[in-house]
Formats: sequence, structure tokens, C-alpha cells
Amino acid sequence: MTSPAEPDAIRALIENIHRSFHNKDSTAATAVYASDAMIFDLAPPLISAMGTDADKLQAWFDGWEGPVDRLTRDLAISVEGDLAFCHVLLRTSATTKRGEHAKFWTRVTLCLRRMGGSWRIVHEHESVPFYMDGSFRAAVDLEP
Amino acid sequence: MTSPAEPDAIRALIENIHRSFHNKDSTAATAVYASDAMIFDLAPPLISAMGTDADKLQAWFDGWEGPVDRLTRDLAISVEGDLAFCHVLLRTSATTKRGEHAKFWTRVTLCLRRMGGSWRIVHEHESVPFYMDGSFRAAVDLEP
Repeated sequence: MTSPAEPDAIRALIENIHRSFHNKDSTAATAVYASDAMIFDLAPPLISAMGTDADKLQAWFDGWEGPVDRLTRDLAISVEGDLAFCHVLLRTSATTKRGEHAKFWTRVTLCLRRMGGSWRIVHEHESVPFYMDGSFRAAVDLEP
Repeated sequence: MTSPAEPDAIRALIENIHRSFHNKDSTAATAVYASDAMIFDLAPPLISAMGTDADKLQAWFDGWEGPVDRLTRDLAISVEGDLAFCHVLLRTSATTKRGEHAKFWTRVTLCLRRMGGSWRIVHEHESVPFYMDGSFRAAVDLEP
């Protein structure tokens, strides 16, 4: 049985992550993950060794000047009982320490489980495609 | 309520896809997808335009010499009611028309819904990470 409010709870969780990125608060950003969450990240290896390590995320945050801003598009959420998944397009934008503005779109899949009444991310998959023109270049310049 | 047999049904679905790839049977390979499945594929754009088009998959199959073989590792399946998700590492191997052997590992997330008694893939996300050493090279050479 799923309450109609559940998609809203998951939407709020995602907005919480955005806020944590904006505030560069790695403790808050990682608090919504299960401790054994399986992460397929943008950077190698195949399975993220960084996982949901708040210290490593903080180091990444601190590599940027000012806030790390995230904007989503085409968010779709499916919920049944204590299980949920969603997929979304994500635009991350931030400024490097040298003052260069970086902005790129990725695809994100989140799989969630409700544990002790709270939704937790148990699996995250974030990626960009790559060009199959022989260059094997990551397609970080795509827009939806 | 979830029967303990459901993960087996999803495992069988994945093995069916492997068999369809081996046999280069695009009709069978695409039959397990919902008609409006949202695909985040290896190749651009962000949202696959190819989707689950059997003709386009067949053209891709026909670009290889002999079978396209797939092997999975670390498959984890979660099911509740008519909703399920799973994540897995996938090794694809095939031979080009020039006789070169290609083999690469990707990460795959599948989100499924049971429709009319049968599981269908409603969302698929397949990717490789990319090197963050300034090269933006797709990491098609990783092994688990």
C-alpha cells in the first residue's frame, strides 16, 4: 500500500540533496543514503569506492568556488510499499577556483527503500553517454 | 506481497535478454521492455532515441560478426509487489566484421514493473564512468 504522499517525500529528499550541495554540507548530502548503498558514479572505478563518504564529498565540494547548484528535469517517480525508483536529468553548475564556470547535464537513476519510516537511497547511477565516433569522448556537452 | 519466486522471474528475464543477444534476435530482446520505457544508453543523446526499437537493435546486431555475448556479475534484485529494481555489472563481448575481438564492462540498472502478470523493463540505465584526468575519456577499459 502506497500513500499518494510518497512521491512528494522522495521529491523532498532530492530537493534536500540539492540544498546540501548548494550549502556544500556533505554530512546532510550523504545522510539520505543507506550505509551500504551501491553507487555507480561519474568517475571510475565501475563501482564507486567513494560511495557515500562525507569526507571525500566535502573535499570535492571544497574544490569549487562558491555553491554547487543542481537543477532537475523530467523527474519520474515510481513507488510501491517500501520500494521506489526514479530517473531524472540533472544539470550541475559550479565555478572553479580559477573562476571558470562549469555546467553539465547527467542522467541519474535513484533506487530507494523505506527504512524505519524514512526513505534511503540504496542505489544511485549517474552517468553521461560517450561518443561512438571512435573518439570514446564522454558526452559532457549534451543538453536535453 | 511478493512471492520468493519473483527474483527468479527477473533473473530469467535477464538471461532471456542474454540469449536474445547471443542469437541476435532483436524482436525477443526488445519484447521484455514496456513500450514507453525510458532508456539512458551508452551512446548519446541523454535519453536514448533508439529506445527499444527492434529494427535499430537488429542493425546494431548485424554490425558484429557472430554472436554478441553477455556475462553478468554482482546482480542484486529488489522486489516489492509489482515493482522491482536491480543493478549489475555486465561484460559484453563480440567480434567485429574485421575480426577484432571487443570486450568491455558496463554498469546496468534495470527498473521493472509487473504488467498483466509479466515483468517489463520500464527504465534502463547503462553506462561506463569517464576519466577525470582532463581527458574526458570514457572508461571502457575497466574491469571489476
